[in-house]
Amino acid sequence: MSGMNFDSWSCPLPLRDYPHVVMGHGGGGKLTAELIEHLFASAFRNPTLEAFGDAAVVPPLAGRLALTTDSYVVRPLVFPGGCIGDLAVNGTVNDLAVMGAKPLYLSAGFILEEGLPLALLGSIVERMAAAARAAGVLVITGDTKVVERGHGDGCFITTAGVGVVPDGLNLSPDRLRPGDVVVISGPIGNHGVAILSVREGLEFETEIASDTAPLNGLIAEMLAVCPSIRAMRDPTRGGVAATLNEFAARSNVGIQIDESCLPVDDQVRAACDLLGLDPLLVANEGKVVAVVPADAAEPLMDAMHRHPLGTRAAIIGRVTDNHPRMVVARTAVGGKRVVTLPVGEQLPRIC
Amino acid sequence: MSGMNFDSWSCPLPLRDYPHVVMGHGGGGKLTAELIEHLFASAFRNPTLEAFGDAAVVPPLAGRLALTTDSYVVRPLVFPGGCIGDLAVNGTVNDLAVMGAKPLYLSAGFILEEGLPLALLGSIVERMAAAARAAGVLVITGDTKVVERGHGDGCFITTAGVGVVPDGLNLSPDRLRPGDVVVISGPIGNHGVAILSVREGLEFETEIASDTAPLNGLIAEMLAVCPSIRAMRDPTRGGVAATLNEFAARSNVGIQIDESCLPVDDQVRAACDLLGLDPLLVANEGKVVAVVPADAAEPLMDAMHRHPLGTRAAIIGRVTDNHPRMVVARTAVGGKRVVTLPVGEQLPRIC
Repeated sequence: MSGMNFDSWSCPLPLRDYPHVVMGHGGGGKLTAELIEHLFASAFRNPTLEAFGDAAVVPPLAGRLALTTDSYVVRPLVFPGGCIGDLAVNGTVNDLAVMGAKPLYLSAGFILEEGLPLALLGSIVERMAAAARAAGVLVITGDTKVVERGHGDGCFITTAGVGVVPDGLNLSPDRLRPGDVVVISGPIGNHGVAILSVREGLEFETEIASDTAPLNGLIAEMLAVCPSIRAMRDPTRGGVAATLNEFAARSNVGIQIDESCLPVDDQVRAACDLLGLDPLLVANEGKVVAVVPADAAEPLMDAMHRHPLGTRAAIIGRVTDNHPRMVVARTAVGGKRVVTLPVGEQLPRIC
Repeated sequence: MSGMNFDSWSCPLPLRDYPHVVMGHGGGGKLTAELIEHLFASAFRNPTLEAFGDAAVVPPLAGRLALTTDSYVVRPLVFPGGCIGDLAVNGTVNDLAVMGAKPLYLSAGFILEEGLPLALLGSIVERMAAAARAAGVLVITGDTKVVERGHGDGCFITTAGVGVVPDGLNLSPDRLRPGDVVVISGPIGNHGVAILSVREGLEFETEIASDTAPLNGLIAEMLAVCPSIRAMRDPTRGGVAATLNEFAARSNVGIQIDESCLPVDDQVRAACDLLGLDPLLVANEGKVVAVVPADAAEPLMDAMHRHPLGTRAAIIGRVTDNHPRMVVARTAVGGKRVVTLPVGEQLPRIC
C-alpha cells in the first residue's frame, strides 16, 4: 500500500463503533457531525474551517481572484507515490499555480460509498492535510455525502481552489509567438504508468511512483526570474500532447518538439513500450510545461534546475509559424510525426 | 418528469454520435473537448469560462471572500420542482447568502456514470445555467470525470461558490442572545417530501414540489432592512431541527419554538403523517431561518412578506436562557417536547 499505513491512523473513540462509512455519515445528523469533528476537522485544523459556517469567510484578497475545480475519481484510491487525497490537493494547487495565481484556500467535497473503511478515509484525509500543509494552502470548507453500496466507488473527492493573481501577470495559452521556447520541468509519464502498473499488476525492478507534487513553489521561482512566461499548464489527462495541442490551437501557431530532448525515466519508457503507450499522452501530476520567449529560456532553466522539482527540467521544443495548430515531433531516429490527441480514453480514471 | 422535457434539448450534431456518456468523455481528449464546447460552454456561456484556463481569473473582490462547497447526489436526478442541476446551483448560492455574502461565481465538477443519456445531462446543465442566471451568478470553471457503469449513479455534481461579504457584516451562529426572535421564510418540508413521494410512488391531490430556489435576493432585502440579524442558515439536511440545534449549541442558549406557528403546507403535513416524518427534520432547499433582536422582528417580517420568496414568512420562536443548548417545541396540543437530531439518516440522498 505504498507508504500508507492504515494502522497508523488513530481513529478517535466515537467513530470506532462504525468501522465503515454508513449512510448516516451523510445524513446531516449526529453521525455527520461526528465525522466532521473527529475526522475532517482534526486533520485540516484551522480557525476558518472550525467556524463551521455554511460558507468560510476570509480576509480580502490583494489582487485578481483565480478559481478552479477538479473532481478526482482515481482508481485505486492508493497507489505508489500517493493517494486520491494528495492528488486532489496538488491537482487543484497546480491548476491555480499555472495561471500565475498564488494558491490560498481549498474546499473539499467528499462522495463516499457506504462500506468504505473509516481508517482508509482517515488516512486519505490525513494525506490531504499533509499535502495542503506542504503547498501552504488551507482547506477552509467542505461537504460529505454518502451513497449506497454499489452506487459509488469508495471515495470521490472534488476540490475547488482559490488563489490571487498578482497585478500585471497575464498567462494565457493564446500568447505563444513563433520563436518561443517550450520547456518541461522534469521526466514525463510517471503518474499514468504508476497507476496502470498497479492496476495491471506489473512488476518492475524498482517501483514506479506517481509524481504528484505541488508546483506552486517551483512556479513562483520561475515567475520571479522570468515574468515574461507566455503560458503554463500542468500536463495531466492527455499528457504533454494535450497541453501542446491546446497551446498550438489557441495561439494559432505550430509547435515542434524533439523527442530525444524529452526527459523520460528508463523504467517509464520500458513500461510504455510494454503497454503500447506514448509517453507524450500519459498523465503527469507534478510537472509543468511552460512557453517562454527565447531570450528568457536560459535564466529560466537555471532557476528551474535550482528547485528540487525542476532538477531535470529541459527545453523540449520551439514555437514555429510552420504548420499552425499542429504539434510535430522529431523522432529519435530522425523522422517526424504529428502528435495528435486520442479521440477517447487512453487510461480511464487516472485522476 | 415534472417539466423537464428532454426532447427540448437540442444536442449539437457532433455529440449525436454518442447518445450516452462514454468513458472517453472523461479522458481529456477530443470527446472531452467536444462535451465541454457543445454542452457545458454553450449552456454556461460567459467570457471567463470561455477562456478555458486551468483556473478562471476574475477582477479583485471588494470585501472579504466567502467560499463554500456542496456535493449533490440526490436521487432521482429529476423530481417535482427541480433537478440535481438547479439544486446544485441554488444550494451553493444559499450557503453563501446565509453568511451575508453576495454570491458571484460558481465552479462545477461533474462525476458522470458511463451510460448516462446525453440528453438528460444536457437538460440538467441547461437547468443549472438557468438557475445561475436567476441567481445572478456565473459558472466560470468546471471539470468532468466519467466512471464505469456501476461505479457511480448517473450524475453527481459538486459546486463551489465564491462571494463577497460587505464590510461590517458578521453573521455567526454563536451570536444569539436570550430574547432574540427566530423567523422562517416560508413553509417547511417541501423538498424532502417531494423527493420521498417520487421515490415511494406516493400520489397526492396536487403534486408536492421541491422548494429549491436562490435565496440571495430575499436575504439582500432582509439585510438591507435589518443589518442586526444575528445568524442565518438554510435548513437543508436535518431540517429546521438541525439548524436550531446548531444555533443553540454554538451560542450556548435555549430555543423555544411554537409548532402552531410553523408554516407547513397541508399536503406536506399529510405526507409527513403518512410517512411518519417530523416536518422539523425534513430538508428544505429554498428557506432561510434567521435570528434577530426582538425590536427588529417586525420590520424584518414586513420586508420578507414583500418578497416573492417570503410571503409566508413567520415568527416561529424565541431564544431563551432556559435550557441552554436545547431546542424545545410547544406542541399544537399545548405540551412540550425536546427537538433533537437523528443520530443517522432520516432520508438518504435528499440533496
